[in-house]
Amino acid sequence: MESEIKHTIPKSRTEENAGIFPSPTYFSPRQRVMRFFNTPRIVGRMSVVGEKESKGPLGKYFHKCETDDKLGEKTFERAEIRMFDTAVRGAIRDAKLGIEDIDLMVSGDLLNQMTTSSYAARDIGVPHIGVYGACSTMTESLLVAATMVDGGYYKNVLCATCSHFATAERQFRFPLEYGCQRPPYAQWTVTGAAASVVSANTEAVKRFPKIVMAIPGIITDFGTNDLNNMGAAMAPAAMNTMFTLVTETGYSEDDFDLIITGDLGKLGSDILRDLMRKSGIKLGQNYIDCGNMIYDVYQKCYQGGSGCACSATIFNSFIMDKLCSGEYKRVAYLATGALMSTQSCYQGETIPCISHAVIVESPYGGEE
Amino acid sequence: MESEIKHTIPKSRTEENAGIFPSPTYFSPRQRVMRFFNTPRIVGRMSVVGEKESKGPLGKYFHKCETDDKLGEKTFERAEIRMFDTAVRGAIRDAKLGIEDIDLMVSGDLLNQMTTSSYAARDIGVPHIGVYGACSTMTESLLVAATMVDGGYYKNVLCATCSHFATAERQFRFPLEYGCQRPPYAQWTVTGAAASVVSANTEAVKRFPKIVMAIPGIITDFGTNDLNNMGAAMAPAAMNTMFTLVTETGYSEDDFDLIITGDLGKLGSDILRDLMRKSGIKLGQNYIDCGNMIYDVYQKCYQGGSGCACSATIFNSFIMDKLCSGEYKRVAYLATGALMSTQSCYQGETIPCISHAVIVESPYGGEE
Repeated sequence: MESEIKHTIPKSRTEENAGIFPSPTYFSPRQRVMRFFNTPRIVGRMSVVGEKESKGPLGKYFHKCETDDKLGEKTFERAEIRMFDTAVRGAIRDAKLGIEDIDLMVSGDLLNQMTTSSYAARDIGVPHIGVYGACSTMTESLLVAATMVDGGYYKNVLCATCSHFATAERQFRFPLEYGCQRPPYAQWTVTGAAASVVSANTEAVKRFPKIVMAIPGIITDFGTNDLNNMGAAMAPAAMNTMFTLVTETGYSEDDFDLIITGDLGKLGSDILRDLMRKSGIKLGQNYIDCGNMIYDVYQKCYQGGSGCACSATIFNSFIMDKLCSGEYKRVAYLATGALMSTQSCYQGETIPCISHAVIVESPYGGEE
Repeated sequence: MESEIKHTIPKSRTEENAGIFPSPTYFSPRQRVMRFFNTPRIVGRMSVVGEKESKGPLGKYFHKCETDDKLGEKTFERAEIRMFDTAVRGAIRDAKLGIEDIDLMVSGDLLNQMTTSSYAARDIGVPHIGVYGACSTMTESLLVAATMVDGGYYKNVLCATCSHFATAERQFRFPLEYGCQRPPYAQWTVTGAAASVVSANTEAVKRFPKIVMAIPGIITDFGTNDLNNMGAAMAPAAMNTMFTLVTETGYSEDDFDLIITGDLGKLGSDILRDLMRKSGIKLGQNYIDCGNMIYDVYQKCYQGGSGCACSATIFNSFIMDKLCSGEYKRVAYLATGALMSTQSCYQGETIPCISHAVIVESPYGGEE
């Protein structure tokens, strides 16, 4: 059945890439890009981070910094729920709305059965769609929220995600108490939470950035199986979506003020640059990776940050600030997620990854 | 902030119910029901079950029965992936489409990090949105798929889910090898997988059942914390959505040929009947629970079936058969999910639950 597929990507590029794709189905033969013509806008947002993140280069942009890793709670899991709740309520407040105005919440996180997001959503009490895309959850939820708003089903949809270093390490690698040594290609899971409110376009919100397109990810697996080396695993997934970004949206890589990936880290983003170069696309200065930005070198986080909150907190603070002010006109945000579980890795499986993208434009300049 | 909320449900009912709802936010003050005016249709489907399920009262309706619990694979997890793949490819074939016609896949399952659905989706290679709603995944994915098709974003969207007795027991309770005794209020996780193809309305597919409305669930928690007693935990969530069903859709409980819940089991569905009666709504013979239907008494499954596949396989076989033939004109399908993890239960948390609903109408009779 695979052999029947016809690619819409230029033939020369297909041939050039043939060697590095394990399966021809990796490119959808049809229009994969979703276009939102009713201009859903991001009208409210909040980012909460832990102490380590607040001491990094972007520290001053985050809205709230928690100095206690447990936030006064008994467990790290409870702390994560509390952070999530703070971000959600902060974003609703920032949008000048009340909880009663939120029609739907779309959220997810890293923990098994997405407990953080479910337990936090229980207390918020609005209709809830749980999405799982590991660290790509923020763009996945923005994609679903934009669809709900653009399609006219709901007026205000909340997106949120979070991660916590201690809970992620316990679940995916070892509990912190074990004192495990980290390899040099490891990344550091960001402790933080972020939320955005996506609203229907009205006169009152026309000064807010708009979501113009989205690209759902295709699960990509190049065969890595090292739970510590997430960047290398995720780079091919980012490449798959980025390829669609520059071939199907009508924009080239230079039409974006910024192309950001989620949490590939130093190694992963170098791999991505290399993979893209081999596909005939040269990423310039406008490409950055959030995992690369969030920590300083002296903070000893090796390859940089990871986790759902890594790109989510940066997008909802630094990047949205610059979209709101008009400094950035058009940003492509490609969060990346690794979809393995510890069980699947113990059983010798490789790591499948995904990257969902959204394109967000400033209300100033551009096409308006 | 909670106190500001105004309910749209009739005042008398609000007062009557006041005692049994832990929080006033449990009812959305606005229109929660999604209406699909472009008539997305379910044009293909497949259900695969294990041997035990095939010997139950609905055995003859399922499309495929696997007699080996491991399907010849090394692990139960691999077997689950294989079953999922069979259902997905079967549904696509049933819709007379190829994989290259599928624009998007929306799926999820019970395992940590939704590995079954992610690993299966990797091999299928189409854009993927992972949703998590535990055993409510089938209706959650139908809701998202209907939105994508009805809103005009994609033409053919695939929905799928699965569960496996051995993997679910290992993950949530004890490995089978442990030989743990099951309490009389336990349910039996259904081994099976099911998939549906939701397509845009065209002349060619006008003889297929249509999704007319959907209701996203609100997370509800009445404070139970027994990992074996899922029915009691999920009944209040089903009640919350069912209440919206009969107060906001314009239909009363008697307007449906069938109202089905996911996997409450005998105890859970009795609790739901009781909760609804206390809310002034008397469920009649047209209400059934899938967990109650799938096994015979002699099969010793105590309260009945559970798991994502429980309602998904029954909906995609028996119920869709009768919708296609016109025997049922209108069916409300409320799958229910318990959103806890073992970690959250060990830490003393209670079990939050959710119930997403879709209303499906036959192409014959009704409003067409």
